[in-house]
Amino acid sequence: MNFPLPKGYRFAGVCCGIKPSVKKLDVGLIVSDLPATAAGVYTQNLVCGAPVQLDRRRTPGRGFRVIVTDSGVANACTGAEGLRNAEKMGDLAADAIGTEGKSALVLSTGVIGVQLPMDRVEAGIKNAVSQLSDTYEAFENAEIAMMTTDTVKKMVSRTVPLQDGTVVTFAGMCKGAAMIGPNLATMLVVLLTDVSLNPETAQSMLKAAVDETFNCISVEGHTSTSDTVLFLANGAVGPQNLCPEDEKAVGKTLLELCQELAPMIPNDGEGITHLITIDVNGCPDRASAKKIAQTIANDALVKTAICGADPNWGRIISASGRAGVPFDPMKVSLRVNGYDLYRDGTPLDFDREAVSESIRDNRETRFELFFKEGNGSIRFWTSDLTTEYVHLNADYTT
Amino acid sequence: MNFPLPKGYRFAGVCCGIKPSVKKLDVGLIVSDLPATAAGVYTQNLVCGAPVQLDRRRTPGRGFRVIVTDSGVANACTGAEGLRNAEKMGDLAADAIGTEGKSALVLSTGVIGVQLPMDRVEAGIKNAVSQLSDTYEAFENAEIAMMTTDTVKKMVSRTVPLQDGTVVTFAGMCKGAAMIGPNLATMLVVLLTDVSLNPETAQSMLKAAVDETFNCISVEGHTSTSDTVLFLANGAVGPQNLCPEDEKAVGKTLLELCQELAPMIPNDGEGITHLITIDVNGCPDRASAKKIAQTIANDALVKTAICGADPNWGRIISASGRAGVPFDPMKVSLRVNGYDLYRDGTPLDFDREAVSESIRDNRETRFELFFKEGNGSIRFWTSDLTTEYVHLNADYTT
Repeated sequence: MNFPLPKGYRFAGVCCGIKPSVKKLDVGLIVSDLPATAAGVYTQNLVCGAPVQLDRRRTPGRGFRVIVTDSGVANACTGAEGLRNAEKMGDLAADAIGTEGKSALVLSTGVIGVQLPMDRVEAGIKNAVSQLSDTYEAFENAEIAMMTTDTVKKMVSRTVPLQDGTVVTFAGMCKGAAMIGPNLATMLVVLLTDVSLNPETAQSMLKAAVDETFNCISVEGHTSTSDTVLFLANGAVGPQNLCPEDEKAVGKTLLELCQELAPMIPNDGEGITHLITIDVNGCPDRASAKKIAQTIANDALVKTAICGADPNWGRIISASGRAGVPFDPMKVSLRVNGYDLYRDGTPLDFDREAVSESIRDNRETRFELFFKEGNGSIRFWTSDLTTEYVHLNADYTT
Repeated sequence: MNFPLPKGYRFAGVCCGIKPSVKKLDVGLIVSDLPATAAGVYTQNLVCGAPVQLDRRRTPGRGFRVIVTDSGVANACTGAEGLRNAEKMGDLAADAIGTEGKSALVLSTGVIGVQLPMDRVEAGIKNAVSQLSDTYEAFENAEIAMMTTDTVKKMVSRTVPLQDGTVVTFAGMCKGAAMIGPNLATMLVVLLTDVSLNPETAQSMLKAAVDETFNCISVEGHTSTSDTVLFLANGAVGPQNLCPEDEKAVGKTLLELCQELAPMIPNDGEGITHLITIDVNGCPDRASAKKIAQTIANDALVKTAICGADPNWGRIISASGRAGVPFDPMKVSLRVNGYDLYRDGTPLDFDREAVSESIRDNRETRFELFFKEGNGSIRFWTSDLTTEYVHLNADYTT
């Protein structure tokens, strides 16, 4: 298998029984053997999980050795006790690998409003430490230990050569299948590299990459309490200071890693049958293009139409009009899967059956919207809305 | 039947075959025998239907004699031809009752992006004129002729005595079951009274009433292209000029009429099993309370949880946090159906089975959210999200 892993990291995922009814890996560790630089981007939800509060305080910075994760309990809306538990979870992980509490970061996902079973978490961390390894299987276990309703693993890897011939490796893992709406989602993402970066550079590279990727996806538009993207750079290979060309190459690789990883989330949206790519062009600026794309992406009527392979394009135009972005309605055009359906505010004749087939027979559907207001454009990804999504979410805690 | 109708109005609803596959009433007339004052409140969607453009230009004003409606084709996203058709539809109705085109208002609902079959509409209007009557049955036919996926008729009536003993009558009819998201929805509402009002008074009374009612409901949050609330006051009874006390009583009655009518829409939301009433209290102001209520009301995760009678209250708190309104997360409390679930940012122990039962066994569910930021409060109504909603919307045009 061609899945290079960055040097100097070890991984583990074990089952500690956070959800007694489901025997799945639910506690994970990602350990850097060298103290690493860490950057983080977090949910914009005002109500945020205890781990988000902890990590936000600690990043960006240096000297990080471990990320400890759990799935099953999000540790959000858990009051003062939840904050103490998040801190303790980090301390336990740091202690178990023989370092200080402040070198730990914490990620939790699952049900909101429930306290972590700390005795189980503690036993899980001890067990995980004994299994740490730098193999692909261990990396995969750490990924599985973060998953909740995800049906597929979401892991990518790539390398980039520096000017001096050193090969830098990146690997990323993430989870997320619902409560996905920018900015960020119940989406946990861990990005690792073995090059050396200072905290400010790591943070600005991460923010730039996330803006174009993890902030441009949604499933149902609910920005979670727990969204977190963490980026570690441990300096196990290459020079201590990158030259501008190398820094550019490293930033570009991080972006590509995120571009590959981000659409995997809506493509695994709960119960979905279609990944929808929305390209919005010709807006006054990128922010207004995003507002329109996002309004379409979260529109239940658009999403159900795609689920039913129904070329009911009026819903897409109507959703654009309610986005709060000014535009001339008589200068809007729409293409779906390459078929022109609407031009300059006027409906076109089209082969309804052919468009319906192009939706039904493909996993991916593409909307292209054209405005004539400027040069702002964006690409956004979302999923359709199916009866299965409703089934899955109608009884998640009961 | 105790359903008084205001004096001086006649009604009709007929089938003209706009949707050839479904034999239902699809063209309606509401005629005022006296020239009436008309006020209107319209969708805030930038992409709005041709009838909205027409009515918006004409109201508020005096001298209105007829509202002509169709269901099946929304006449939205139909370009210049659509605008000509809306105008023609009004002209045909006015002509058929022997008056001028500019005394007509038009309402259309149905699929977007399709042109009206004008020959059928013309035949329908002629037929409707021959059936005009002031009976309850005729009023009911006009209501049915506006309905699309509505499963129940939504009609209310009430009277109010003036100081001089004159009894003023109000009647209202509306349609709407999806594409419902403030501000306004594919919601058509016609409110009638037989008192005399000048256009400015009628418009300000209507706006005040709509703000607290039809602008506080949603099904899935999609503001339609075609939302319209029309209010006619024809002066068939009572004085030409109301004294302040009478004006206040008339305005209050209009509000009560709307308060009764508005929740009927989410209560008939497509495929729904629950009407959800959301009371938000203690916000900095009414606008921020509305933002929070609306974010909760349109949240797919909250709506599916209620569908499943799942007391997953964390989703309600999380939805509040993503509404973009600043508040202290440690000063938030939540009650569902009278059960206290969350107080001052801390989860409470509660009888999960009892709360679940209180949701499952009742058509109506009530959320009460308490913030400690000020005196802004609002009441908002929405529906749950069910697999049936997805079924209905996955193939609406095909």
